[in-house]
Amino acid sequence: MSFTYGKNLKIQVFGQSHAAAIGVVMDGLPAGEEVDLAAVAAFMARRAPGKNALSTARKEADVPEVLSGLLDGHTVGAPLAAVIRNTDTRSADYANLAGKPDEFAAPAPTLRIPRPGHSDYPAFVRYGGANDIRGGGAFSGRMTAPLCFAGGVAQQLLARRGVQVYAHIASVGGVCDAVPDACAPDETALAAVKAKEFPVLDDAAGERMKAVIAAAKETGDSVGGSIRCIVTGLPAGLGAHMFDGVENRIAAAAFGIPGVRGIEFGSGFAGCEGCGSQQNDPYTVENGTVRTVKNDAGGVLGGSTTGMPLVFRLALKPTPSIGREQQSVDLAAGENTVLAVRGRHDPCIVHRAVPVAEAVAALAVLDLLLDPAAVWA
Amino acid sequence: MSFTYGKNLKIQVFGQSHAAAIGVVMDGLPAGEEVDLAAVAAFMARRAPGKNALSTARKEADVPEVLSGLLDGHTVGAPLAAVIRNTDTRSADYANLAGKPDEFAAPAPTLRIPRPGHSDYPAFVRYGGANDIRGGGAFSGRMTAPLCFAGGVAQQLLARRGVQVYAHIASVGGVCDAVPDACAPDETALAAVKAKEFPVLDDAAGERMKAVIAAAKETGDSVGGSIRCIVTGLPAGLGAHMFDGVENRIAAAAFGIPGVRGIEFGSGFAGCEGCGSQQNDPYTVENGTVRTVKNDAGGVLGGSTTGMPLVFRLALKPTPSIGREQQSVDLAAGENTVLAVRGRHDPCIVHRAVPVAEAVAALAVLDLLLDPAAVWA
Amino acid sequence: MSFTYGKNLKIQVFGQSHAAAIGVVMDGLPAGEEVDLAAVAAFMARRAPGKNALSTARKEADVPEVLSGLLDGHTVGAPLAAVIRNTDTRSADYANLAGKPDEFAAPAPTLRIPRPGHSDYPAFVRYGGANDIRGGGAFSGRMTAPLCFAGGVAQQLLARRGVQVYAHIASVGGVCDAVPDACAPDETALAAVKAKEFPVLDDAAGERMKAVIAAAKETGDSVGGSIRCIVTGLPAGLGAHMFDGVENRIAAAAFGIPGVRGIEFGSGFAGCEGCGSQQNDPYTVENGTVRTVKNDAGGVLGGSTTGMPLVFRLALKPTPSIGREQQSVDLAAGENTVLAVRGRHDPCIVHRAVPVAEAVAALAVLDLLLDPAAVWA
Amino acid sequence: MSFTYGKNLKIQVFGQSHAAAIGVVMDGLPAGEEVDLAAVAAFMARRAPGKNALSTARKEADVPEVLSGLLDGHTVGAPLAAVIRNTDTRSADYANLAGKPDEFAAPAPTLRIPRPGHSDYPAFVRYGGANDIRGGGAFSGRMTAPLCFAGGVAQQLLARRGVQVYAHIASVGGVCDAVPDACAPDETALAAVKAKEFPVLDDAAGERMKAVIAAAKETGDSVGGSIRCIVTGLPAGLGAHMFDGVENRIAAAAFGIPGVRGIEFGSGFAGCEGCGSQQNDPYTVENGTVRTVKNDAGGVLGGSTTGMPLVFRLALKPTPSIGREQQSVDLAAGENTVLAVRGRHDPCIVHRAVPVAEAVAALAVLDLLLDPAAVWA
Repeated sequence: MSFTYGKNLKIQVFGQSHAAAIGVVMDGLPAGEEVDLAAVAAFMARRAPGKNALSTARKEADVPEVLSGLLDGHTVGAPLAAVIRNTDTRSADYANLAGKPDEFAAPAPTLRIPRPGHSDYPAFVRYGGANDIRGGGAFSGRMTAPLCFAGGVAQQLLARRGVQVYAHIASVGGVCDAVPDACAPDETALAAVKAKEFPVLDDAAGERMKAVIAAAKETGDSVGGSIRCIVTGLPAGLGAHMFDGVENRIAAAAFGIPGVRGIEFGSGFAGCEGCGSQQNDPYTVENGTVRTVKNDAGGVLGGSTTGMPLVFRLALKPTPSIGREQQSVDLAAGENTVLAVRGRHDPCIVHRAVPVAEAVAALAVLDLLLDPAAVWA
Repeated sequence: MSFTYGKNLKIQVFGQSHAAAIGVVMDGLPAGEEVDLAAVAAFMARRAPGKNALSTARKEADVPEVLSGLLDGHTVGAPLAAVIRNTDTRSADYANLAGKPDEFAAPAPTLRIPRPGHSDYPAFVRYGGANDIRGGGAFSGRMTAPLCFAGGVAQQLLARRGVQVYAHIASVGGVCDAVPDACAPDETALAAVKAKEFPVLDDAAGERMKAVIAAAKETGDSVGGSIRCIVTGLPAGLGAHMFDGVENRIAAAAFGIPGVRGIEFGSGFAGCEGCGSQQNDPYTVENGTVRTVKNDAGGVLGGSTTGMPLVFRLALKPTPSIGREQQSVDLAAGENTVLAVRGRHDPCIVHRAVPVAEAVAALAVLDLLLDPAAVWA
Repeated sequence: MSFTYGKNLKIQVFGQSHAAAIGVVMDGLPAGEEVDLAAVAAFMARRAPGKNALSTARKEADVPEVLSGLLDGHTVGAPLAAVIRNTDTRSADYANLAGKPDEFAAPAPTLRIPRPGHSDYPAFVRYGGANDIRGGGAFSGRMTAPLCFAGGVAQQLLARRGVQVYAHIASVGGVCDAVPDACAPDETALAAVKAKEFPVLDDAAGERMKAVIAAAKETGDSVGGSIRCIVTGLPAGLGAHMFDGVENRIAAAAFGIPGVRGIEFGSGFAGCEGCGSQQNDPYTVENGTVRTVKNDAGGVLGGSTTGMPLVFRLALKPTPSIGREQQSVDLAAGENTVLAVRGRHDPCIVHRAVPVAEAVAALAVLDLLLDPAAVWA
Repeated sequence: MSFTYGKNLKIQVFGQSHAAAIGVVMDGLPAGEEVDLAAVAAFMARRAPGKNALSTARKEADVPEVLSGLLDGHTVGAPLAAVIRNTDTRSADYANLAGKPDEFAAPAPTLRIPRPGHSDYPAFVRYGGANDIRGGGAFSGRMTAPLCFAGGVAQQLLARRGVQVYAHIASVGGVCDAVPDACAPDETALAAVKAKEFPVLDDAAGERMKAVIAAAKETGDSVGGSIRCIVTGLPAGLGAHMFDGVENRIAAAAFGIPGVRGIEFGSGFAGCEGCGSQQNDPYTVENGTVRTVKNDAGGVLGGSTTGMPLVFRLALKPTPSIGREQQSVDLAAGENTVLAVRGRHDPCIVHRAVPVAEAVAALAVLDLLLDPAAVWA
């Protein structure tokens, strides 16, 4: 069930890039919750392409239609289903991947030349050539639009419970953004990122990142980077043992974002090369509340939250669609060939993935908050 | 259900460090599979402590007793249950964490002073003080023994299908081991690591790591590092879309290992800062088989295997139990205090976690191979 | 996750009777399977109302729109999503159940007077009054339309594998249909039932049932009955132990049909009052195949199929919406009152539920056939 | 995962009749709950055989050993694991089912002659002959002992929340017990049944049932019947829509009891032949509480509880092991043969299944009570 996530709040994503529509069903939302659809649409607009020269020229209105689950703007306890129509699809761009390039409009084109770095070849094997290759099919980055719808709804429920989800570009092509304080992040600054066209804390760093992206585009190349997520307002004791820890559940969600290649919590890989005396976060009592004096743990120990901000970082690979010829194979002929990927593509998707990371984090955290034990506490 | 993992092969772990026993139930194993229990025990012995000065002095025989699921050494289609008795427990070592230190033998000690870097405090909140704090309870690293039992069984089924699971210490305290070729790893060298007391490819690097560990121990400190896993022999097309990808499922399992703080596939975080033209793996046909000429993808694209070796790396934090006084809080008094952790602890657990990483990888990969679609292919 | 079913093929139903739409997402369908949408529509038409005087006068076109998952009439390995728009809704019929009868068009009417026999009152408590009461909301029998879409698709995959799913009215108001031979049912006769307006084997019995229904309608009453399902062509050995048996999984699906009050397999409740010497089905070898000489087991023993036809019967209660005044309570006033249910309702839903029973059986059986072990066999 | 049940409280059963042990792991129990193991053992003793002439002569001490999950008699938030050793196994009784009758002690006997009415043949196909046939293996009625352990624990948590689970023999061989009032059952009488050797309300009816059983035994035959379960003290609004209803979840559990062939709620199959005007339960307000004036619904409407007693009935087939020769097949020779089942068997298992039905009901109901929405209400 590859398109489902969640234990208490289950989401079911569906669609393909060039199908009639993409969408999502949210099952398990508490009843009676207000949902501001305009705010959800505003959230979704943050990942929409076509805003500037750094993104694909594909235009997508991406206006979700709610089919069920709401009555007078409130959840009714039945699944909330939303659909986003696909428009402005240019399937012909994918013709040279297919067996019959001149007949691409013909039914069910089968992959012939897999794009390096894409899921084309594994999917061809996995689905016996039956998968939809137009626009990346169900592997398309476009599938993150319904994730953003669901995440936008989840963020509203979380906010009502005092939980805020932030994200920013941590790095692009080796250029790093400012690092928020892990104990007391500046939430005003993080909230301001949500309104920025290029979601960084330090705009000067952002300019340097944009220069790297522009340079990559110039040379028909692409570039990747990383995203940092910060969730504030979580109670201590959320999550559970072993396979049901906060890390397991967030990682299981985060790798659902196309292009994510790694995840680390708190001080992560770098911190692990250090010493216990440095990495352990000492406790202190502050106004009757137990806190840690620093937060290298990223707000989670042994699978459960500490009550400090939850901090994790995602690695996002450079867009595999590049403007250069690449070595590939002709699956039908069984011989090597050269492929030039066509279509409209992003030289970098890190900035567009920032709201997606927020969305996925919101879904994972709301699911955790709905755990029976969390509810009981 | 925090102690369960798997969709097709489900494992249910149970136990606490100082309970009567720990164990595991494996439900969903194909029937009629031979299981060599001596080989499983040998595998488990690789994580056992007490082998050298770098590990805890706690002695654990860790001989698993199989209660069900086998007949004449073959699986019968019913759950395979194995139990490992806890012996050599020294609960008194944990007395100073509890509310009534001088009455520790008394029933149900409640946490009073949480150890920094451990799950003590979040678990206290999560379970309302009812969790078993003796030896770390169900958060103990000891819970990885049943994981190794299950992983040892899984490795045998995988080997019968031509799949091998390897792991080695990638780094400790900043000292790195040799990096295997991602396309054609030296399987003889990787297999040899399984027999080594200190599981590295480059023994000279291993000596430097041991020196770092010894130095940490000397100063009452600890050190962490990372582990690289390599799985060979996988078919292309294993795994699926979005939330059911290889990465999601391996990550969901890997964070079940205590102390894991991050995971990255293929070229990981570092590769994500690079360019698409460098990171994409070009395809080539070799003896009629599609391969990639390099393997920065780590054998997985878009959630499905490429047929190249699966490569991922886990970050393991320094052991939080250190021999120095640390700042903590007295939960009962609501004030700051100082804690000296007692007990027998590892200055580094990375080397002991290598077979655990293998075990978890084997469980995740076997579960993937049992997917209906994989079986159909 | 109340609207999801299945382990290998997962369906997610959504919608409310008077929402914009109802629909279903099918995740886990094998790729490359042909789907004949006209045949699915024809199957769905069998449950559609308004065909004769025995059913509600509500007209529903119920034309499903496929949003994703198909390309050129074949599955692509991504979720198959279908939507059915709600039309001809007359929400005003439900005004007298609500708190503000004269303002029913106003947003979010809250239940005031629960209809006896309906889910109104438990749902009011369960969802804190936030659930959609218009037309029964997400409890409406209308929710079986997407079930029929999914079941219609499943039947096509089953037929391709030699499995046929049949159902007929077993009884209405005490009048019984002919009982098919459990070992060698007349599949021609059972197939003919699918084309009948009133789905019985014995049309004379059907006329007597219709008379009972008409009499009930005459007096503002309703009547229930039972449905028998028969699945032929199943291999032996499908299903598994204890909680994963064929009975468990079919029952878990069948109680998803509104109004189902019981399920029994084979000789069922009556057979259980008999003796073992009569109930046991002796084995015999026929043309090299193991069969039973009779089939009181209904084709399933200990959770697994025997290779004989699978036979089960569902009890369906009389439609709770009746044309008479009934005693109820005014939830707002906290006092007894009398309610006359308005709206267009079926005096009997058993005949319309026959294709729904087929649909649910098809979904459960296809899910079983996709079990890894079944696939391996 | 055939031996697992539950969404919030997950149980994992394991074992075979003649393996070293049988047992159960309960994952998801709230922490800090007191568990009276003596009371659990007393509950388990109710299903134990060997108490009188109506049951198998096999003696089983069935003393569970708790391996983990408890500390000082309270749950700790980690899985509660219990093991019951198998003793007094007489595998030789099953020799004539196997391929090598004179070598039965030899490893891995394979089924040769399936017993009619047992799972032998489907399991042989399902597991390719690798399943354990000694004593019925994992299909044995003995597997209900760990179910009773788990159910005994669950009942204690339920009782603490005001919920009581009762069961009695509803019928044996056509002889019926008294029927409790569905609205206000006599809980004193129902509680008294728990202490009876033969669990009926009306002891005179019980004597008649015993005569039927004795007569069956006399003639080498067996007899079945039905069990009624009643759960009191449930709040209204438990359960959810469609596939997550109380009926779905209880049925999914109840068919895990070997020999169950049907389940019906409230007035069940018989009630479904009646009219809506009779079957609908009118509402009334009693001391400020909404109740129904009768309870033909069996306490559940549309998947959710009404707050009235939950009532359901299970059909249990006659023990398939009978003392007469039966027609079967020799799977190796591929020809018909005659089988005389040996071993110690119950001429009726209905009375022993009464606590099992209670156990399964308790597990299903506790799981429902742990639903996030239930917890929130």
